[in-house]
Amino acid sequence: MRPRARELGLRPGQFAPGKLNAITDVAGVLVGQVTKLEGEGTRSGVTAILPHGGNLYAERVPAGLAVINGYGKLAGATQLQELGELETPIVLTNTLAVGRVVEALVDWTLERNPQALSVNAVVGETNDGRLNDIRARGIVAEDVLAALNSARDGVVEEGSVGAGTGTVAFGWKGGIGTSSRKLPAALGGFTVGALVQSNYGGALVMDGVPMGRALGKFYLKEHADKGDADGSVMVVIATDAPLSDRNLGRLALRSMAGLARTGAAFSDGSGDYAIAFSTHPQVRRPAPEGMVADWPNEKMSPLFVAAAEAVEEAVLNSLLRATTVESRDPATGKKRKVEAIDIEAVRAVLSAHRPE
Amino acid sequence: MRPRARELGLRPGQFAPGKLNAITDVAGVLVGQVTKLEGEGTRSGVTAILPHGGNLYAERVPAGLAVINGYGKLAGATQLQELGELETPIVLTNTLAVGRVVEALVDWTLERNPQALSVNAVVGETNDGRLNDIRARGIVAEDVLAALNSARDGVVEEGSVGAGTGTVAFGWKGGIGTSSRKLPAALGGFTVGALVQSNYGGALVMDGVPMGRALGKFYLKEHADKGDADGSVMVVIATDAPLSDRNLGRLALRSMAGLARTGAAFSDGSGDYAIAFSTHPQVRRPAPEGMVADWPNEKMSPLFVAAAEAVEEAVLNSLLRATTVESRDPATGKKRKVEAIDIEAVRAVLSAHRPE
Amino acid sequence: MRPRARELGLRPGQFAPGKLNAITDVAGVLVGQVTKLEGEGTRSGVTAILPHGGNLYAERVPAGLAVINGYGKLAGATQLQELGELETPIVLTNTLAVGRVVEALVDWTLERNPQALSVNAVVGETNDGRLNDIRARGIVAEDVLAALNSARDGVVEEGSVGAGTGTVAFGWKGGIGTSSRKLPAALGGFTVGALVQSNYGGALVMDGVPMGRALGKFYLKEHADKGDADGSVMVVIATDAPLSDRNLGRLALRSMAGLARTGAAFSDGSGDYAIAFSTHPQVRRPAPEGMVADWPNEKMSPLFVAAAEAVEEAVLNSLLRATTVESRDPATGKKRKVEAIDIEAVRAVLSAHRPE
Amino acid sequence: MRPRARELGLRPGQFAPGKLNAITDVAGVLVGQVTKLEGEGTRSGVTAILPHGGNLYAERVPAGLAVINGYGKLAGATQLQELGELETPIVLTNTLAVGRVVEALVDWTLERNPQALSVNAVVGETNDGRLNDIRARGIVAEDVLAALNSARDGVVEEGSVGAGTGTVAFGWKGGIGTSSRKLPAALGGFTVGALVQSNYGGALVMDGVPMGRALGKFYLKEHADKGDADGSVMVVIATDAPLSDRNLGRLALRSMAGLARTGAAFSDGSGDYAIAFSTHPQVRRPAPEGMVADWPNEKMSPLFVAAAEAVEEAVLNSLLRATTVESRDPATGKKRKVEAIDIEAVRAVLSAHRPE
Repeated sequence: MRPRARELGLRPGQFAPGKLNAITDVAGVLVGQVTKLEGEGTRSGVTAILPHGGNLYAERVPAGLAVINGYGKLAGATQLQELGELETPIVLTNTLAVGRVVEALVDWTLERNPQALSVNAVVGETNDGRLNDIRARGIVAEDVLAALNSARDGVVEEGSVGAGTGTVAFGWKGGIGTSSRKLPAALGGFTVGALVQSNYGGALVMDGVPMGRALGKFYLKEHADKGDADGSVMVVIATDAPLSDRNLGRLALRSMAGLARTGAAFSDGSGDYAIAFSTHPQVRRPAPEGMVADWPNEKMSPLFVAAAEAVEEAVLNSLLRATTVESRDPATGKKRKVEAIDIEAVRAVLSAHRPE
Repeated sequence: MRPRARELGLRPGQFAPGKLNAITDVAGVLVGQVTKLEGEGTRSGVTAILPHGGNLYAERVPAGLAVINGYGKLAGATQLQELGELETPIVLTNTLAVGRVVEALVDWTLERNPQALSVNAVVGETNDGRLNDIRARGIVAEDVLAALNSARDGVVEEGSVGAGTGTVAFGWKGGIGTSSRKLPAALGGFTVGALVQSNYGGALVMDGVPMGRALGKFYLKEHADKGDADGSVMVVIATDAPLSDRNLGRLALRSMAGLARTGAAFSDGSGDYAIAFSTHPQVRRPAPEGMVADWPNEKMSPLFVAAAEAVEEAVLNSLLRATTVESRDPATGKKRKVEAIDIEAVRAVLSAHRPE
Repeated sequence: MRPRARELGLRPGQFAPGKLNAITDVAGVLVGQVTKLEGEGTRSGVTAILPHGGNLYAERVPAGLAVINGYGKLAGATQLQELGELETPIVLTNTLAVGRVVEALVDWTLERNPQALSVNAVVGETNDGRLNDIRARGIVAEDVLAALNSARDGVVEEGSVGAGTGTVAFGWKGGIGTSSRKLPAALGGFTVGALVQSNYGGALVMDGVPMGRALGKFYLKEHADKGDADGSVMVVIATDAPLSDRNLGRLALRSMAGLARTGAAFSDGSGDYAIAFSTHPQVRRPAPEGMVADWPNEKMSPLFVAAAEAVEEAVLNSLLRATTVESRDPATGKKRKVEAIDIEAVRAVLSAHRPE
Repeated sequence: MRPRARELGLRPGQFAPGKLNAITDVAGVLVGQVTKLEGEGTRSGVTAILPHGGNLYAERVPAGLAVINGYGKLAGATQLQELGELETPIVLTNTLAVGRVVEALVDWTLERNPQALSVNAVVGETNDGRLNDIRARGIVAEDVLAALNSARDGVVEEGSVGAGTGTVAFGWKGGIGTSSRKLPAALGGFTVGALVQSNYGGALVMDGVPMGRALGKFYLKEHADKGDADGSVMVVIATDAPLSDRNLGRLALRSMAGLARTGAAFSDGSGDYAIAFSTHPQVRRPAPEGMVADWPNEKMSPLFVAAAEAVEEAVLNSLLRATTVESRDPATGKKRKVEAIDIEAVRAVLSAHRPE
């Protein structure tokens, strides 16, 4: 089994991870995934993140959005920002499946809320068309329902699974990755968890080590822009700190720091988004008594650092845990393959860069 | 046949309309609509606005977005803002149909662009659930294709048609409305056209005359908020002025002025959005020679005034041309009806408010 | 003494004003003004709005900002938005005085806070250069201190005073205006107050009556854009409702509706801004117990309506209460004069437009 | 003389710097600085960046702004964003000097433009109060004029100079730093230059090497948040690529990536801003013929990478070139000192982290 970042000695940042080093370290958060591998074409999937196991439409959670580079089809963005809240799970999938996934997520919500006439489905995506026959539309409503209905806490499967089944990052196979940070009690004691769907490019850096350049694979290597840094990344951040939607938006933006430290190019064609939400019971909406918990601006900094760290490590996990995926290009009929990053090569480079 | 605003002597603002007093006065703009009336439940539809009749994905137009109140499910918002452009038509429909309409619009675009792996479908909506059995999902892919494929220039059908089939505005039947303004040559000579899907509330004002109060129907009449101002409005603005995406965003925001003058409450639950685009050939993308036309900031003001005027009159047209719609409430099984505004009553109030 | 809008029978909207029909109806809000008339050149001043009489730097209030058209020099905008709060009074003045007023407001704050090393002074402006010798820089630090130190509750002086001393609106003398709305108990019972510094243009409308056109004075009258709609407007909104900074930002944006109903052109060169704050004791910062009051999104609509109404009426008051101001143009040496709107002419037009 | 980053073998990214490895590699850009060291209190200064040597008010340049964390007093932000342009130089100074510097910059502009009645002065700041007696207000108008009037091309002085005289970064002495990147001809051949005023914190990383941790100095080291990551950073980016204001805003945001790679904490109290402008003659405003050059979205990616690289290296230069500064704390009367980073210690850490 391929290692996670910590097993290779990679420990970005200074805070310790939570128990599972996963977004599910934030109590109550559930993740469900469906991996779609069909024939030689479909290499895609669905990843659903539920802030809590109850009825999200009835018990909404505050949320914030950071649009780092808006080349993407994120559904639900404007209502999330206007009202500062989530009323559905966050579902990730591929670019051309967003319409269908929105419909399925709306259906799922309507079924649980017989009076509902309006649903703001939040669906993110990255473009897995380098491996997936994306025009064939392999994702169907049942996949969404399966992901939602199988969501659970505990260990989160990483790599070439769910919405990361067909993604590519830094020229290697990308995918789903997760990580978390637990703040010391003196800094609030809260947990921050991140989950990423990595499908972007640049020059891969692993905890400061220039892996992409060391392994000879990086964006603009030959001073030609083949669009190979495009593709997008979706970041989901959960915390149990009682944050306002404004501070959740600020927290979400810090994911840009985590991505930057992995060597992201933040290219024109990469849709880079982060959504952060709080699971704290006293920020749920509606608030029964009209009084809500609020963590003040001036105590946000350690949470900001934790978010950046968790995102950075989640990306590393997405790459390290990903496995090689092959398919056939529907346009040319040719086989195509994106290799998982070579763990032994990674070990060697890391070893060479460690202080003597 | 019910009159348009001008036929009642309503002439908001100071500029003259274009020939048809419609968004299609902006040369090249096409509109296609499908009205869905099925059984006693479905009262909905689709309205498609095409900036030009060519391949929009290959010849994109600059565009700007104003999110006036983001309680809505507008698809495609973030990419429109990041890149400042449209690569699909704008399609309007009902709230719960957005997913399906996105999918259909993506399909339509993929079919015309065999290499495309990414499509940013722009789909707006308002909630017609007060008349439409919105949970029954009456809109299907064929409706979208029919609207797109039947788009044409010339007169635009208004009232209880297309995406306005089941909408309600100010307590009366709302719907699709359109209007335009042609600037005098000294101010640039450009045309600005607007199309609205009116489904919002407040206290209706017609060119300054407090119609809602005069007719005894207005939001908060009994100092009780029944959510009756909610519902949303989508505004589409077209111009042949060679505007940058930034100035198109500013133009779009001016629609808030037009809406305000109709008495809009801009309530919490109303998703109020405006998208503006330019049809000028020298702002199309890609720009063959890398040089683009640009109308300067300091000459924008008359265009701003024209946009507000056209939006105001488009709303009036949507109400005046709308016809009464009935349906059966799927939850209670009871008949329900939203009346068209009474033209004779309108005439009487206008007459009473005219200067002696 | 010139009448306020209500004395002429103008009653925009449906809610009743507070006791004074002024921003000071929001308990705790203080206003201080200094009017600078020096020689034939300086026609300017300072208007300070204090959310409460205590130490604002130590007891901050949540606040939101709407940048309707950002052609202005508003100081303090980005920190207000990032932190969602005010730590100084809001001070209004003329365009070229902003630097000096920021310095004075910083000094005033430093004096009251011996440990402070950072102050986010919020200073708004409009350009009174059509009457004021703005390049002569008539506003000095003492004026700012005098405005701050003389701030009081009670009646607010309107018209050609304070920061409105030299302003022009719709071609007539503009100035400071204020108004308020008190919601019925069933809608929360809160008060919303507005204060405006009117210096913008368009075609004046008074509660629906096209006053500018009736009196033959309006922007683009001869289809020539002389920039006469430029100039800007600053709006300050106070409420005792316990709003989050996000909902205060939404409240602030509704001022665009009020301005629109006065006939604002929202021209390129008009810097149109609104700042809204809450005086509710349980939203002050820091919050002693980490729990804060929060009025929910779904109850915001009546407050939105009230804000638009108060802004509309505040503008009318600014015009009606303004008195004619003369000065000498420093560039040409010629006398110049901006007339107050003719009250009898206004009465006549209103009378002609009243329903029989 | 202390080394720049390249002299220590630090070469962040993959593109080569321009001739001087400075913002002045973008032809036409001028920088002027004034360093204020007075008695034991004042440790501050002014740094002015001029996009060109002509009359900026008459020949404006397009510009974009990224507000990464808006805890700052940046003057001119909203107009820059609304109009997408600069009409004054960008002047950097300390937090409490912004008012005075705005006034001086306005004066300087008025003097050169006898008809001007409105000036949008763009003034950025960071808080140098850890070394500077910031409340004593040592910066005066003459300093601003001196910086503006001495601006020149060529080598830019770095370290404890100008607006960086009293700044602190990562616990060491920060200051002014600059760097540039020249794209290969195949990618457009443009130059991107950056200048930073570093005054922020985190855990310093030098081209991937965890310098802060290696030297035992980093934010949250003892899991206590002393606010030591606060302080801010101003970034100015110049390019000769013919970019729209929208793409300049996107370019500016990429500075967040450069800052992240230096280990920035992006703390609550750090005002982190970037302004990017284009010097290309065919994007100047007004555009004589109404046609402007425009570099398309899809070719922006290499520029994005270049901007992040230049910002990262500019920060390193600001630290490496900074010299130790001492002063006396006006509150306690005690001596205080912020040490320059120890070059030999840096060399040792770098050497230990180099691949064998």
